[in-house]
Amino acid sequence: MKAEIIAVGTELLLGQIVNTNAQYIAQECAHMGLSVHFQTVVGDNPERIRSAVEIARGRADVVIFTGGLGPTQDDLTKDVLAQMYGRKMLIHEPSMDAIRSLFSNRGAHMVESNIRQANWIEGSDPLKNETGLAVGNALTIEGIHYILLPGPPKEMKPMFKNEVLPWLHGVMKVPVPLHSKMLKFAGIGESNLEHAILDLIDGQTDPTLAPYAKEGEVTVRVTTRALSIQEAELKMMPVTEEIYRRLGAHLYAERDIPIEAVIIEDLAKSKRTLAVAESCTGGGIGDKLTMVPGSGDAYLGGIVCYSNDLKHKLLGVPMDILEGENAPGAVSSEAAISMAEGMLSTAESDYALSVTGVAGPGSSEGKPAGLVYIGLAVRGRETVVRELQLSGNRESVKLRAAKSAFYMLWRSLQEESMK
Amino acid sequence: MKAEIIAVGTELLLGQIVNTNAQYIAQECAHMGLSVHFQTVVGDNPERIRSAVEIARGRADVVIFTGGLGPTQDDLTKDVLAQMYGRKMLIHEPSMDAIRSLFSNRGAHMVESNIRQANWIEGSDPLKNETGLAVGNALTIEGIHYILLPGPPKEMKPMFKNEVLPWLHGVMKVPVPLHSKMLKFAGIGESNLEHAILDLIDGQTDPTLAPYAKEGEVTVRVTTRALSIQEAELKMMPVTEEIYRRLGAHLYAERDIPIEAVIIEDLAKSKRTLAVAESCTGGGIGDKLTMVPGSGDAYLGGIVCYSNDLKHKLLGVPMDILEGENAPGAVSSEAAISMAEGMLSTAESDYALSVTGVAGPGSSEGKPAGLVYIGLAVRGRETVVRELQLSGNRESVKLRAAKSAFYMLWRSLQEESMK
Repeated sequence: MKAEIIAVGTELLLGQIVNTNAQYIAQECAHMGLSVHFQTVVGDNPERIRSAVEIARGRADVVIFTGGLGPTQDDLTKDVLAQMYGRKMLIHEPSMDAIRSLFSNRGAHMVESNIRQANWIEGSDPLKNETGLAVGNALTIEGIHYILLPGPPKEMKPMFKNEVLPWLHGVMKVPVPLHSKMLKFAGIGESNLEHAILDLIDGQTDPTLAPYAKEGEVTVRVTTRALSIQEAELKMMPVTEEIYRRLGAHLYAERDIPIEAVIIEDLAKSKRTLAVAESCTGGGIGDKLTMVPGSGDAYLGGIVCYSNDLKHKLLGVPMDILEGENAPGAVSSEAAISMAEGMLSTAESDYALSVTGVAGPGSSEGKPAGLVYIGLAVRGRETVVRELQLSGNRESVKLRAAKSAFYMLWRSLQEESMK
Repeated sequence: MKAEIIAVGTELLLGQIVNTNAQYIAQECAHMGLSVHFQTVVGDNPERIRSAVEIARGRADVVIFTGGLGPTQDDLTKDVLAQMYGRKMLIHEPSMDAIRSLFSNRGAHMVESNIRQANWIEGSDPLKNETGLAVGNALTIEGIHYILLPGPPKEMKPMFKNEVLPWLHGVMKVPVPLHSKMLKFAGIGESNLEHAILDLIDGQTDPTLAPYAKEGEVTVRVTTRALSIQEAELKMMPVTEEIYRRLGAHLYAERDIPIEAVIIEDLAKSKRTLAVAESCTGGGIGDKLTMVPGSGDAYLGGIVCYSNDLKHKLLGVPMDILEGENAPGAVSSEAAISMAEGMLSTAESDYALSVTGVAGPGSSEGKPAGLVYIGLAVRGRETVVRELQLSGNRESVKLRAAKSAFYMLWRSLQEESMK
């Protein structure tokens, strides 16, 4: 069955609010195996709402409205639908009683327009509103299932969960829901990843594979139809294993979490600690690590050594690495190694990362924007360093440098755990 | 003129991401006087993208796409439009060169599919992508203006501002252009700000005032129609002055920059320096400061002392403040003061900020999530400290703590400059 979500509200068209309702309803539909093919946003205008309904009923089996059930003259969803199909508008008495008693409890004066919130299209099923006043409606006309929900998320969400889900399960003829799993990758770009599994993507029927990229990470969503989570896992296993065989060095999680959360988990589990010396990332690595709840169990802190003076004073980087005619400079593998080792001994941690580079715009020390060195010092092992040439603006370079540092540490933790 | 926004991407239909692009584009359209009547979301499916275009061209003069310009087989927006109108697909050579040089700089292998990002519909105007690879397109066919933008917000937004706005101004027949100015506020919430200038907002005709909030900052956009920037400035001056009279202690800029950029500018101008000791913000303050190009002129760096051990060792915070039955603890005004003073003397900076608090979720040291202390040490002055009770999740608390620290420092710089 195909679904369409229609959000009604001029405030959405003006960009005053973001359409989080569409996301919530889309997630719920995906989860129950209802394919959303379109989402539409339309303003509080009767002709345009009508035209949106005409288009939707031509291409969807289920049309889910959110918004336009309130008390004002602008709230038109029920009226438009009733008029289109020549249905009477009735008053839903239990909802009317609830509205009346709310106003009398508050000692407030009920204005005429509040009655509109108890409106009920003839022949529809009322959907109870536990957190607000406007009653929802669900009805099937000419084979199309219409669901009318209020706009405020705090009213819409409970109504969806408690009233719409059972109603939809009753009318749907597809008993096999969708299940999906997120595979998360680091240290590889979207196009290289796609290239490596193109035959799997192209040959897909069930499960299906969909790669996408955001914020320096690449995700592949594996989706299948199955009656239980166990069955879904079994169906997804062969393709997941094949992807792991090809890209295991980049696949850091099989759920939607950032790589820094995996690192914190790994470290905390084995009671190991991390400290970070940051130059060009300026604190971004620590910021990301400390977004993870409980990060204090593994992350001790670090030093943001933006100036050469602090690199020398707090991390003991020798001045003859940092400055002078023949010095390698602050952006060099020598500096990255010295920073990581200085951090390890200052913090007395098990691991220390260091990042130094040119965030841009423009070059520095005669080195190009995007040139970054990452050092990794590990207690009892030789310090390693990696040189990267990253692209993008200042924000991107900083983000990619941080994600590359996480990838380097994650690989090192992986390799150790395999020994 | 009527506009429609079409966001292309199966991840939107599955509810994996929220359609913030539609909100951004809708705001920009509203601002330039372009009425958005519909927003549509469609998946990565050629027939359905085609049908969305057919509907849109029947009801809009301007159709703005976002998404589907990437390198993968799923990215279809340009292909569908070119096929519908029988146009050839060309390679935009400057974009191709940029893609090639990016891969060669990175030493990475360019796969065939990356070429798709340089695709360019015959007869269209290329829209430069300054923060990514996919070139945008703008073209007018049969009286309909089509604009094709990438999906990632960090590519879409600069392309809209720098490329689409002038292109649209060229095709729109608005005789008197809009001019606007952003007034940026810190240390005040949106509702308090609105309350303070409600009479000005309600009484507005030209200029108009529109307040909105994002990421811990509040903005008021002042907009007027004028033939020149000089005329616009003159028209905006009385209301801007009245706002300054009422809210000068919060109004930190008359252009759209974050408060940390103003701080870096102020400090660099007078050759003063800043260091930051961060506990609960975990590096977020340094991260934000170093997003400002040239921040190295004023920001020396800092210490992320997530553990008590590092607070003591690197900043000299006495252990009897941090631990023990009757100790004030790491989240206390005593700790914040000691951290700020330790940072000032360690970095030998002119200013030092410190932040310590409970980011949550859940309490720590028996103190509630959101309790934050900010210290400010200034060379030759008594250290000051502020206690805040912030609301929201871990991410919000960290962000608000950072913005509150910036506000505290900005006020201090303001007061000094008035002496």
